[in-house]
Amino acid sequence: MADLTIWTYDWVPEGPRGFVRDLRLRWACEEAGLPYSVKSVKFDDRSPEHYARQPFGQVPVLQDGDITLFESGACLLHLAQKSPALMPTDPKGAAETLEWVIAALNSVELVSVSWWFVGLSDPAENPLESWLLQRLNHLDAVLANREWLAGGRFTIADLLMADVLRVPKFRQFNPHPSLEAYVALATSRPAFKRAYDAQMAHFAAGSIARDKASL
Amino acid sequence: MADLTIWTYDWVPEGPRGFVRDLRLRWACEEAGLPYSVKSVKFDDRSPEHYARQPFGQVPVLQDGDITLFESGACLLHLAQKSPALMPTDPKGAAETLEWVIAALNSVELVSVSWWFVGLSDPAENPLESWLLQRLNHLDAVLANREWLAGGRFTIADLLMADVLRVPKFRQFNPHPSLEAYVALATSRPAFKRAYDAQMAHFAAGSIARDKASL
Repeated sequence: MADLTIWTYDWVPEGPRGFVRDLRLRWACEEAGLPYSVKSVKFDDRSPEHYARQPFGQVPVLQDGDITLFESGACLLHLAQKSPALMPTDPKGAAETLEWVIAALNSVELVSVSWWFVGLSDPAENPLESWLLQRLNHLDAVLANREWLAGGRFTIADLLMADVLRVPKFRQFNPHPSLEAYVALATSRPAFKRAYDAQMAHFAAGSIARDKASL
Repeated sequence: MADLTIWTYDWVPEGPRGFVRDLRLRWACEEAGLPYSVKSVKFDDRSPEHYARQPFGQVPVLQDGDITLFESGACLLHLAQKSPALMPTDPKGAAETLEWVIAALNSVELVSVSWWFVGLSDPAENPLESWLLQRLNHLDAVLANREWLAGGRFTIADLLMADVLRVPKFRQFNPHPSLEAYVALATSRPAFKRAYDAQMAHFAAGSIARDKASL
């Protein structure tokens, strides 16, 4: 019996499949060889029990014994304490990983997810576009000179940044050669492929169950 | 001689004074009684040396001996390792603090800063408004039932969340009684007042130096 449980939705529409953030936790567990099980909450009807675990009604939630955490970034930093495969243990390498984990969440995803959200309403001009481009240019310059962000090796900072960057929409918007190469390298890792396949299989099974229930 | 150095700008326009993110680090140091010194980078002309420390050209940067970190959230988590005044040391309290630090950055500030940025172009309708309102409603419900976010006590999660929420613009936009009370309580702490006053004094001095230089 795995001590780690990852909560995700029972089902999502086709668009977000392969991009739901439980994938970040699955990927980390696969990198570190940490066994985990998966539990589902209803996508259509989020219960008070789910809001008690995740106050914004989202996923993932990580259960680790009697500790329950929400926010994928927090779950990754928590998991990283279990394995040096996820984060170096020397103070300098740990600090570099930490700063790039937060940069992925607060300097890149802050702009990229908002840019995507504004784009949904199909405005003539997206007011966040120049800001996003500026952030991607700065990051592209960093990754032109190194393979991984922190400690000279793959860490959860790369797992998170690559997951933020691989959203197809804004990679089409403005290709950056170093970012393209970086995402390709990170997502070619066997642990990513296992995590991705497991999420796709989970939602495919959820889809079949949903179809049967609607008969 | 303080081991901790906080880098900020030498000067900023009046609008952002009192809100530049070095305040988060000053506030944490004041809460924990950690001595620190402040160094400035030019606001108008950000040097290659600054980009080497902060790849997005922003502030703050924290220097702790031979470790240099950017991203205010990362700096807070780093400082928290130095003092239980900032974060509980028991695993459950630490995990709660961590999840709420990330929630402040990735669930609330992600939406609020983008909403503010979109608002600068004065659109007829801000496409991020309903999303922001939803996030604030969820957070308001959490804070209706407790004083602080994590571990039953003030932590860096509150420092960060209160700093995110105290931006006047979106508190006017939709008052939430629990959020109002929470921000008032957090910012009434003597450590916040010392940090705020120190930032204001720093930029006032920078302003005088700038005026003299332009004579």
